[in-house]
This record gives sequence, C-alpha cells and structure tokens, in this order.
Amino acid sequence: MTPGPVQLPQEVLNNMALPMEHHRTPEFIALWNRTLANLKRIFNTEQNVFIHTSTGSGGMESALVNTLSPGDHVIAVTSGKFGERWADMAETFGARVTRVEVPWGKAARVAAIEDALRTHPDTVAVLCQACETSTGVLHPIREIARAVSKSKAILLVDGITALGALPMPMDEWGIDVLVAGSQKAFMLPAGLSFISFSKKAWTRVEQAKCPRYYFDIRKEKAANDNGESYFSSAVTHVRALELVLNIFLSQGLERVYGRIQTLSRATLLAAGEMGIEVFPESPSPSLSALVIPEGIDGQKVRAEMEKNDAVIVMGGQDQLKGKIIRIGHMGAIRDEDLLLTLKSFAATLNRLKPGTVSEERIIAALNKAAEVLRESPMVAMKVALA
Amino acid sequence: MTPGPVQLPQEVLNNMALPMEHHRTPEFIALWNRTLANLKRIFNTEQNVFIHTSTGSGGMESALVNTLSPGDHVIAVTSGKFGERWADMAETFGARVTRVEVPWGKAARVAAIEDALRTHPDTVAVLCQACETSTGVLHPIREIARAVSKSKAILLVDGITALGALPMPMDEWGIDVLVAGSQKAFMLPAGLSFISFSKKAWTRVEQAKCPRYYFDIRKEKAANDNGESYFSSAVTHVRALELVLNIFLSQGLERVYGRIQTLSRATLLAAGEMGIEVFPESPSPSLSALVIPEGIDGQKVRAEMEKNDAVIVMGGQDQLKGKIIRIGHMGAIRDEDLLLTLKSFAATLNRLKPGTVSEERIIAALNKAAEVLRESPMVAMKVALA
Repeated sequence: MTPGPVQLPQEVLNNMALPMEHHRTPEFIALWNRTLANLKRIFNTEQNVFIHTSTGSGGMESALVNTLSPGDHVIAVTSGKFGERWADMAETFGARVTRVEVPWGKAARVAAIEDALRTHPDTVAVLCQACETSTGVLHPIREIARAVSKSKAILLVDGITALGALPMPMDEWGIDVLVAGSQKAFMLPAGLSFISFSKKAWTRVEQAKCPRYYFDIRKEKAANDNGESYFSSAVTHVRALELVLNIFLSQGLERVYGRIQTLSRATLLAAGEMGIEVFPESPSPSLSALVIPEGIDGQKVRAEMEKNDAVIVMGGQDQLKGKIIRIGHMGAIRDEDLLLTLKSFAATLNRLKPGTVSEERIIAALNKAAEVLRESPMVAMKVALA
Repeated sequence: MTPGPVQLPQEVLNNMALPMEHHRTPEFIALWNRTLANLKRIFNTEQNVFIHTSTGSGGMESALVNTLSPGDHVIAVTSGKFGERWADMAETFGARVTRVEVPWGKAARVAAIEDALRTHPDTVAVLCQACETSTGVLHPIREIARAVSKSKAILLVDGITALGALPMPMDEWGIDVLVAGSQKAFMLPAGLSFISFSKKAWTRVEQAKCPRYYFDIRKEKAANDNGESYFSSAVTHVRALELVLNIFLSQGLERVYGRIQTLSRATLLAAGEMGIEVFPESPSPSLSALVIPEGIDGQKVRAEMEKNDAVIVMGGQDQLKGKIIRIGHMGAIRDEDLLLTLKSFAATLNRLKPGTVSEERIIAALNKAAEVLRESPMVAMKVALA
C-alpha cells in the first residue's frame, strides 16, 4: 500500500515470466511500436513518447540534459524531497537555479512562479512536480503551465506519481516536458521511465549543450523513427507495459482514474471520521499523506503495521520522518486492502497510545470508506475483448 | 541462441513473477546487501560493486562520467560496434579520444596500445571491450591491463559480454573499471548494469569533473555504505539476480565458465567439420561469430532459421551486416538447443545455396559437437543445498 512501487496485478507478474525475446525480432519491434503509440494516449499528446531503461530519476535527468545548457537559468519549485532532487540535479548539470520554495505540504502558488519569472526574465525552464510524492500534495499544473506559456521558458513536469493516476493532458495543458515512471500508476516494477517533449521543447533539444549519451533523446528519436529502440530494451518490462496499457485503454482511462480518485476519497473521509489530519492542503489522488497524532512515533506506526497486520505503508522522508504515513492509491488495490490498511492504522495508533481513536470512530470511518469504495469498484485487470 | 538477451532459466522467470516488494523494507535491504556482496565474487574484487538501473550502455556511461573530466585524453580500442560506441560516448563527454583501430574480428595488439600510450603520455584512461559482441573477438585484457598499469592511465573494461561467462579477476589482472550487464551471462532481462572501480580509479572519481547525477557513483556509494540504494531499485531484477548469483556460487563458477567454454568449443569444432570459417581470430567463449559462405545473404540465413526452425540467432551489425551469424553461448542452453541451431544453420545454407555443406559433413559436425557437449553438461539451474 505504498505510493510506489505498487502492488502489481497477477496478470502483470505472469506476463513477466514469459520466455525471453530478443529486442530486435520483428515480433518485439511490432510490440514496441504499439506500446509507444499507446503511451501517447496516456500522455494525451501528439508528440512522441520515449522509453528509457532507468528509474524515474533517470527520466528527470533526461528532461534536464535534453533541454538545458550549462549556465541556463532555471526556476525550480521545491516542495519536498523530489523537488529538491530535481533542483540539485539541474545545478549538477550547470544550471543557475532559483528555488521557489513551497512549505512541505502546501501547493505551489502560481503567483510566486509568475513573480520569479518576472524577476528572472532569462529563465529558460521551470521545473515542478505534478504530485510531490514525499508530501502527497498535488500542484496546480494546468494553471502553472498557463503562466509559464506566457514566458519564453518551458515547463518541465515530473509526473512520476501522477501520470496514469489522474488526467494530465500534456498538449491541452501546455506541458513542455512530461516525465513518468513505471513503478507507480503503470503497475510495473521500477525500471522504465517515460518522457515526451512539446514542439517548444524540441527547439531546446536541438540547442541544448548539456553532454548526454545514454539519455540523448535525439538518438532515441532517430532509432524510434526507424521503428526500433537505440539501446537494448528491457524486454520483460516493455511487454508487461503493453499489457498494462491494454488494460487501461480497454477498461477506459476514466474508470482507471475514477478508481484511484475513489480510493483517495475513501481514505480522506475515513481519516476525517477518525479525527486524523490530512497532511497536504491539496491532496493528490495518487496517495494520501496522513499526520501521525502528537506523541506517537510514525516510524513505529509503519513498522508495527507491517509486523502485526502485514500492511506495508511508507513513512515520511527527511523533515517529515516519523511525522506522517503515506498510503498509496495506485496499483492493484482491492477494497479490502484499503479497509484493512485503515483498520490497521487506527489499531496501531491505539496500541502505541491508547485511546487515540475511539472504537465508534473506527467503525464509522470503515463504514464510510466501504460506502465510497462501492461507487467505483476495482478495475478489472483484464484486456476487454473487442 | 543470441549473444544477449539470452534464454532465461525457468527458475528466473518464476522468480520475476513473485509479488512486488518495496525497496526500502528490511527484507529487501537484506537481499540487496547479500547481492552486492555476491557480485564482488563474480568480479573477483575487494572493491564495492554497484548496480545501476540501466542497460549495459548506461554502465559504460557511468564508467566514463565517474572518472573523466572534459579535455582529458583517452585511448579507445575500437574493434567493432561497441568499441565505436564507447569512443563516441567519451567524445560526447568532452574527452579527446585517440582511437586504436583494430580491424573487425582481430584481437587488439598490446604493442599498439603501448605505442599509443607513449605517443600520448597525457592519457588518463584506456577503453577496451573484453569481448566485442559485434565480432565475437576476445581481447587480451590481462596483458592490456599489465601494459596500462605501467602508465598513469586507468583501464576501463566493457565486460558486458564477458563477465559471468569467463574468468575476469578484476583485482588480480589490474582492471580499473569493469562494467557488466544483466542480459548476458547473468541470465536476466536487460535492465541492470554492474560496475566496480579499483583504488586507482577511485582517486579519479574524486577528481572527475564530468557532470553526473543518475550515474554518480559517489551518491550510490554513500547510500550503499548506509545499506541501501540511492534511487529506487528495480526490485524484480535484483531479486532474480540474487537467485542467479546463488546458482552460480552454489554450482561453482568453474562449472559455469566450463559449460560456456564447452558450448563454444562444440560450435567451433562443428563449424570446422562443416567447412565454415570462424570470423574472429581469438573467439570469446561467450559467443561464436561464423562467416556466411560466399554467395549467401546472411540476413536471409537468420530469417530462414527463425521461420523454419524457430531458432533465433543474430546476424552481423554495421559493416558485417549479412556476412556473419552470431550464436550465443550464455544463458540456459541445453545440448539439444545448440545441436538444433547447428543443424538449422547448415540446412539453411543448403536451402539458400544447395550443396554448401554435404550431408556427411553435417553428420560429422553434429556428432563432434555432441561428443564435446557430453564433457560438461548444462549447469543445474538450482541452488544447491548446503
């Protein structure tokens, strides 16, 4: 029940156990091209989507090295661990970085980004997480994109804990570079990152002077235009990706997003019933970060939930260590998985500090969650027949 | 039967279908550390071995960006597609590259590297493939290492199609940076690369000025020293890697290498019996590159073998397109897999150009191969009980 890696559907696991194929066979090449085409539908873009064999952080590096030159001025929205990472990464590659610091748990304010763009008219790129996984906040990407589009800067969005979990239409919103990762809403193990560049971003790709080879999107584009990948493909991951995309598209993206939204709503309502505070001011549907009540060590909560109930959630990172737990809503989550998680959480709080949540509140919370979950049942992990 | 990705043991495929685990759980962290310790035994080094989530080319980039600074002079041994790639990559990151060009199929001459080192005393690194996958040649790495060790340069070795297939004791031979990949002798899908740095190389890591983040080995070392990976781990790959390393170590590396050597010897002897020329002058045991007889299109040979006999081998790349076929000897290869491959190859040559190999020669070749294969049976893909 973590915000990634997520629980994989059995169908995906079975798919990963199929015999190896060579990535240069006509069969795999056909699958590769179908998969790239289907990824465009998740990104909602007319542009190419590319696959790197890397974790999401590799995709974040690709976004930078393909669009920046040393000395470029960049605005980085930092609102948690992954925002900090992206800003550090940009500095590593020689960018001059101005951080728009957002208190952890708060959503970025568009006006603050507009101010920074006015103060630094030489800004060539704005970096922002869609969902900051470390705090569970969802930033107003659509509005940020509108603001950035009025400048000469491009908007780079880390959609790792967002894409596939909620609508993020790249072209319509005007996102210039969008990055995603396999181990979140795409229900795969870590190992692939996905990235797409808008037309505006492509002009930067041609000019960018950051040295790059493994993540050089020009090489990958030339190979893809020729129907293949530039490097060896992570065949097992790509085949399982095809399966997941077929599930998404045949079941309908609205239903996929709806289910995640429902898991989120059930969790937040249950937390409310139990008197548990929600950490972020605008929670992303992809995960819920809940505040550990005063006087309880959140690291113990996490460990006790695993030990006693075999429920694995994540705690807080860095400054939030011990202060929150994070429950993921992506992946193959059954109703009973979430209900057990909520029950285990409440029981663990009471074990560590008796009387934290009353029996009545727990029952009310679970009833409320169950009621909400009924509205949008788990998406069938099957490819619907045409 | 390609030189990678290779056929995976069923045990590995089954392992990849196990339920997902989070990479920050105590269970996975313990497995991670066992696996890093076992990798050191394959590299035969006292130094740390690191895992990147990338294909082998990512490991090649890691070797460069962690040891070089822009403007550094580098000698690159180029003897095929992957030597060219590494030289290009070094230039991309700002190195001044002198190529020691070796005709495709020939082994590098140590004297040529010594000459280049004398001509360019400012050389900081020498790059060489152990086995050049595109030609099947094995370079004399031990001797090259001895020559390079007398200079201030470090030796970077691409062991992607060598490590795990033949002994390559990093410390004893004096290799400074050694790179390997998961989809070859390690019998996994593509997705992981492995890398280790000698003490001499570590002094370069501290000084190297190439910008790096995703492949920054200092970050990874600090995280590993703390028992964890820096980025998310490709959990399914790493768990399967643990299984493979346990198979290797419990069955014995000598037997693993012996089997690959035997598959190679059987292939080369059979080729000799059939009057088929072996392409490289010093063939690597990890794959055999065989010359397509005059008047036959090698690309057709590859395609016909797949169509008629469901045998998948690889053809030549770049300047060798249509001129050779490459048969891999790594992975879960049964005796009958190799015998069928040899039979299919001969039959296909005869189909495309009748009379190329006589019936008697085919029978003699298969008998010879079968006889050799009996000497070193397939390694059991099981973890032996203590």
